[in-house]
Amino acid sequence: MVKMLVSYYSRSGHTKRMAEEIAKAAEEAGAEVDLLVLEKVDVRSLMDYDCLVIGSPTYYGQMAGVVKEFFDRSVKIHGKLAGKVGGAFSSSGLRAGGNETTVLSILQAWLVHGMLVMGTSGADHFGPVSVGEPDEAALKSCTKYGERLVEYSSRLSK
Amino acid sequence: MVKMLVSYYSRSGHTKRMAEEIAKAAEEAGAEVDLLVLEKVDVRSLMDYDCLVIGSPTYYGQMAGVVKEFFDRSVKIHGKLAGKVGGAFSSSGLRAGGNETTVLSILQAWLVHGMLVMGTSGADHFGPVSVGEPDEAALKSCTKYGERLVEYSSRLSK
Amino acid sequence: MVKMLVSYYSRSGHTKRMAEEIAKAAEEAGAEVDLLVLEKVDVRSLMDYDCLVIGSPTYYGQMAGVVKEFFDRSVKIHGKLAGKVGGAFSSSGLRAGGNETTVLSILQAWLVHGMLVMGTSGADHFGPVSVGEPDEAALKSCTKYGERLVEYSSRLSK
Amino acid sequence: MVKMLVSYYSRSGHTKRMAEEIAKAAEEAGAEVDLLVLEKVDVRSLMDYDCLVIGSPTYYGQMAGVVKEFFDRSVKIHGKLAGKVGGAFSSSGLRAGGNETTVLSILQAWLVHGMLVMGTSGADHFGPVSVGEPDEAALKSCTKYGERLVEYSSRLSK
Repeated sequence: MVKMLVSYYSRSGHTKRMAEEIAKAAEEAGAEVDLLVLEKVDVRSLMDYDCLVIGSPTYYGQMAGVVKEFFDRSVKIHGKLAGKVGGAFSSSGLRAGGNETTVLSILQAWLVHGMLVMGTSGADHFGPVSVGEPDEAALKSCTKYGERLVEYSSRLSK
Repeated sequence: MVKMLVSYYSRSGHTKRMAEEIAKAAEEAGAEVDLLVLEKVDVRSLMDYDCLVIGSPTYYGQMAGVVKEFFDRSVKIHGKLAGKVGGAFSSSGLRAGGNETTVLSILQAWLVHGMLVMGTSGADHFGPVSVGEPDEAALKSCTKYGERLVEYSSRLSK
Repeated sequence: MVKMLVSYYSRSGHTKRMAEEIAKAAEEAGAEVDLLVLEKVDVRSLMDYDCLVIGSPTYYGQMAGVVKEFFDRSVKIHGKLAGKVGGAFSSSGLRAGGNETTVLSILQAWLVHGMLVMGTSGADHFGPVSVGEPDEAALKSCTKYGERLVEYSSRLSK
Repeated sequence: MVKMLVSYYSRSGHTKRMAEEIAKAAEEAGAEVDLLVLEKVDVRSLMDYDCLVIGSPTYYGQMAGVVKEFFDRSVKIHGKLAGKVGGAFSSSGLRAGGNETTVLSILQAWLVHGMLVMGTSGADHFGPVSVGEPDEAALKSCTKYGERLVEYSSRLSK
């Protein structure tokens, strides 16, 4: 059984809403999921999961500083996450407001950890995004993302 | 008077439509504008302008190969565009389909040429984007972009 | 047995040299490897592999136009590469000359195909890079990259 | 006279060393320069400068969380920096360790502020980088960067 962490930093609740949808889809796909606000995650616990998914609002085209600080603290376990699957999602205030680049900023951090990240051939290519409150398309994107993350994490963790 | 090139590669006509709007706004702001399909632009002519703006559809999250080939050919005049202003815009088929990253791929190429590129504090931060046919918001973004490019190109070329 | 394609576009021979090293390491790790210049690869053949690795020289901070054209043609099989593993490597003329961003430009294209890409917790984080002729560090990076790609492709293709 | 801020976050002293070199070159080119650790910069003071240059160590391929928090706080003056010139530099622990992407992460934040950023046709294309202690090439890159930033900031602020 795949162990997945879905964590988020959220002020408006939009990123949180996306996290819930990803977590629900992953559970229905058979994963054991911990859904946690980022403030409650100990970086050392990242080693316990097969798949790590983090969401952030779009601040200046990148993950929020609070989320980046979390990644900076994760240097304590640098090298120990290699081979795990990483995911990302983001909610922004504006269209073309940097949510693609925010998702990529999180994926890049997972790559530096030696992890694998996954794209999607349909929307949303790099990871689920939302402009403002997640609409049906954004939530559907979250659902598919959660399902596919479980599929590949399951194969990789065998 | 600012001399500006607005060029584009366009199959569906969407990127072309954006180019027309940027060119029109730049002319109204006082620039002398050449609006040309990229296939008709000689890379050596890039040296004649103060401001260079190129649009591409979003193909695999980046400028089209045809556009990239154009940049590759521009190596002939490498170093001679330093200090000019560069701009970019893109039209994509899907939301979160890579149009932010496509705009950034063009801006990056301008940076390698030693040029300056400009962001926008409102939408669209990195340059005008459209999902499918440009709607009112996309066209307004093009108008503002054209105007601001003229403003800064004018100061820099003095 | 993992089937891997290692392909490259190379003018100076530096990117080719890296491709050979990755292919050799992958074969020694148990993969069946096709090492081909990109000009000889039919995009439809991409479906036959578990792992696809493409190298390009760094031109304007991104993959060469020729390589981008290849990706653009791959739209014919869009969606059919989902779940495969993608890799990238690059050789540049200058330090800080855009080879990290070139590797990322290829990885991004794989993500749009719905594939998985892999980072490395040591050097080189996003994929092997070389400044000029590959030195010992660059070749070692290629070796490790080939080995790890086989490992994860093997798990994913089961 | 151009007013420039050169600010940095530095643990090892490498990023600080680069900051000093940029500041020195900018002063010699005629600018009035404030060289300050980031912790001492009030975001509101950013409005007082024509050119803003920030350096960060490379942490997970992006600016440090502390620096990102600074940008997040700068939302208080969002829109008020439009038209200024922004610069970036970075020091990393590893070659191909993400310093290009770190420089770009800072430039992207400046773009979201509506500012202009500048590339270089020679090394280092996006902004000065160093692997470990800045060597002669890195310091020379800092010098040229400081000089060119003054040149274009001077024209833009007229």
